[in-house]
Amino acid sequence: MPVEFADRMKNIKGSEIRELLKLTENPEVISFAGGLPAPELFPIEEMKKVSVAVLEEEGRAALQYSTTEGHGPLREKIAQRMNDKLKTNISKVDILITNGSQQGLDFAGKIFINKGDVILCESPSYLGAINAFNSYQPKYIEVPTDENGMIMEALEEILEKTKNVKMIYVIPDFQNPTGRTWSLERRKKFIEIINKYEIPAIEDNPYVELRFDEGFLPCLKALDTKGLIIYLGSFSKIFCPGYRLGWTCASPEILSKFIIVKQGADLQASTISQREVNKFMEMYDLDAHVEKIKSVYKVRRDLMLKTLEEELPEGVKFTRPSGGLFTWLELPENIDASELLKKCLENNVAYVSGEAFFPNGGKYNCFRMNYSTMTEDKIVEGIKRLAIALKEFM
Amino acid sequence: MPVEFADRMKNIKGSEIRELLKLTENPEVISFAGGLPAPELFPIEEMKKVSVAVLEEEGRAALQYSTTEGHGPLREKIAQRMNDKLKTNISKVDILITNGSQQGLDFAGKIFINKGDVILCESPSYLGAINAFNSYQPKYIEVPTDENGMIMEALEEILEKTKNVKMIYVIPDFQNPTGRTWSLERRKKFIEIINKYEIPAIEDNPYVELRFDEGFLPCLKALDTKGLIIYLGSFSKIFCPGYRLGWTCASPEILSKFIIVKQGADLQASTISQREVNKFMEMYDLDAHVEKIKSVYKVRRDLMLKTLEEELPEGVKFTRPSGGLFTWLELPENIDASELLKKCLENNVAYVSGEAFFPNGGKYNCFRMNYSTMTEDKIVEGIKRLAIALKEFM
Repeated sequence: MPVEFADRMKNIKGSEIRELLKLTENPEVISFAGGLPAPELFPIEEMKKVSVAVLEEEGRAALQYSTTEGHGPLREKIAQRMNDKLKTNISKVDILITNGSQQGLDFAGKIFINKGDVILCESPSYLGAINAFNSYQPKYIEVPTDENGMIMEALEEILEKTKNVKMIYVIPDFQNPTGRTWSLERRKKFIEIINKYEIPAIEDNPYVELRFDEGFLPCLKALDTKGLIIYLGSFSKIFCPGYRLGWTCASPEILSKFIIVKQGADLQASTISQREVNKFMEMYDLDAHVEKIKSVYKVRRDLMLKTLEEELPEGVKFTRPSGGLFTWLELPENIDASELLKKCLENNVAYVSGEAFFPNGGKYNCFRMNYSTMTEDKIVEGIKRLAIALKEFM
Repeated sequence: MPVEFADRMKNIKGSEIRELLKLTENPEVISFAGGLPAPELFPIEEMKKVSVAVLEEEGRAALQYSTTEGHGPLREKIAQRMNDKLKTNISKVDILITNGSQQGLDFAGKIFINKGDVILCESPSYLGAINAFNSYQPKYIEVPTDENGMIMEALEEILEKTKNVKMIYVIPDFQNPTGRTWSLERRKKFIEIINKYEIPAIEDNPYVELRFDEGFLPCLKALDTKGLIIYLGSFSKIFCPGYRLGWTCASPEILSKFIIVKQGADLQASTISQREVNKFMEMYDLDAHVEKIKSVYKVRRDLMLKTLEEELPEGVKFTRPSGGLFTWLELPENIDASELLKKCLENNVAYVSGEAFFPNGGKYNCFRMNYSTMTEDKIVEGIKRLAIALKEFM
């Protein structure tokens, strides 16, 4: 059947992570591949009470269509939370509820990108974002990064000599995949630069509340003076991903575009999910829940870093994230992480090879490991298996 | 702030219906505008038990990320239901779960439409579909319709002389906005024609189970011999829209495109909503629920048609739908339904003016009325108000 697809479909391929997740469903496999929250921390008992309360108190409204922007009280709580935690100065009207922050990425591509336009991003960057943007046929320029995040001199140099940059995509806190966090200085400089060039920037910030130490850094949105930052937030990592709820926070002119795009895309996020998450925040203490998550992930991060240190051979480097879900490993130049992965899968341990995180490809010796999903004993056992595979391979 | 948006944004505007819905939130207004199911029929008590059961039995999985394709047992039940009710011959693997069928419309545009490509649709057609497709900058050719649906001679004539037709969009059962249903003969002829030209067709069929009489007509997907029909289904009208769950059923090559587009767009539909709807179908009788809905809507349709007959002046025509949610009214040529709507809103009664249902515009004397949302007394009172406004206006 010779059905003709649109040109953009040539750019779109399935996410390697989601394909890999199917392989790792085998319970024998110790998987550091996903970015899954620890399911044993989900507030199951609380959500039983919450579900019944929502249906009892507001059942008809909860099961009906609702507004595209999202449930008012939930948007209000999100705005308040951002102001409290991240020092933004926003309100309910600046928030659109989306299906996870992933949907905000797709919408950003739709709103800003003509075919051939340039997106700047960190090198490496989140592959789910790259997959979303690819529908709109952009070109990418990867901006070099170091342990303090995107390198601002490099960013400015690229902006100076590149036409058609329509959007900059960044993850300033506990980046996916590297786990790195931007310094305050870089954040301020970034705002200065985007103000000068007047380029909108997507601040993808799903992990920001999962900081393991006492430090504080303002989000880019809190430093934004020209309304150029589009902040994407999510309940997936601080609550549960199963509800598929996230949000976009942007200045009115930009947010209005997100809202009409949301209308056409799927009318609105789930009414009942929105009301359930809102009710959870009324009946229980989300802060306390986040604290619990953080304390567990901190132990797992510590254990993963310690075990990597002990088990891995010389010549393998890894990042030391101060929050979030991931560490990023660099192998000696001559080792291809996707070849190594095949060996690892034989040994029932998995990670995500690094190449897919570089939108222009070409980097083969790195990979991402998640420390939030696996329990402590599995973290140790999994790294041992990885080390064995790696030593055989080297 | 001179941020530059993508060219496609010029094509996208907010849905008039959703804007109108805000106006009609005032409880004084009797609104025939929305396509809202009757909230008094929602299975609230049942869903309390269902929610608790899902969290109790499968809480961790229900709150976690899951596969893009959707929850296996739900996809299986949908396939079985389509085979039973609509005489298709499909299975679980032919189904992708989406956020309502609206998301399937957006994906269809993304998958098939390059800028300037032609979409054929019924004249008039569903404005939510037009809004979704507009993101991909198509041209539309409206195919004339009569009381038996799309006119096949007209369709064939257009296909013969038009290049770049990439997709045909149709609603064969209880069409939105006209309430009309295609005859069996037209359905068979349609398949013959698309087979000849090898053009994929979207069969948008959210109302098909809401047939008020005993008749049966196979859906287009059941007649499809070349895998060209992409069937969109929804739980919004037979269950509750608040969960935002629908599905796409298509042949493997086409469905695989929908799946990778779903990955980039928002990863997956809500895990917990899918499991709740699945559990409802296990614990309760969805057929019995649909019967209850139908019996209520049938009474309302009968009452609306009878009251329109009694109250409206000569020269106003309306359709007599055998199912679904809508009837379609045609005023004398010189009357602009959106001007009349202003007068109606002053009288606290609302409908949706017809112009937005014609993708190329230009038709002003018709409007859509919904009979599923308002109770019997409001249907009578609302039509009386409409008749007063109309008589003043004429």
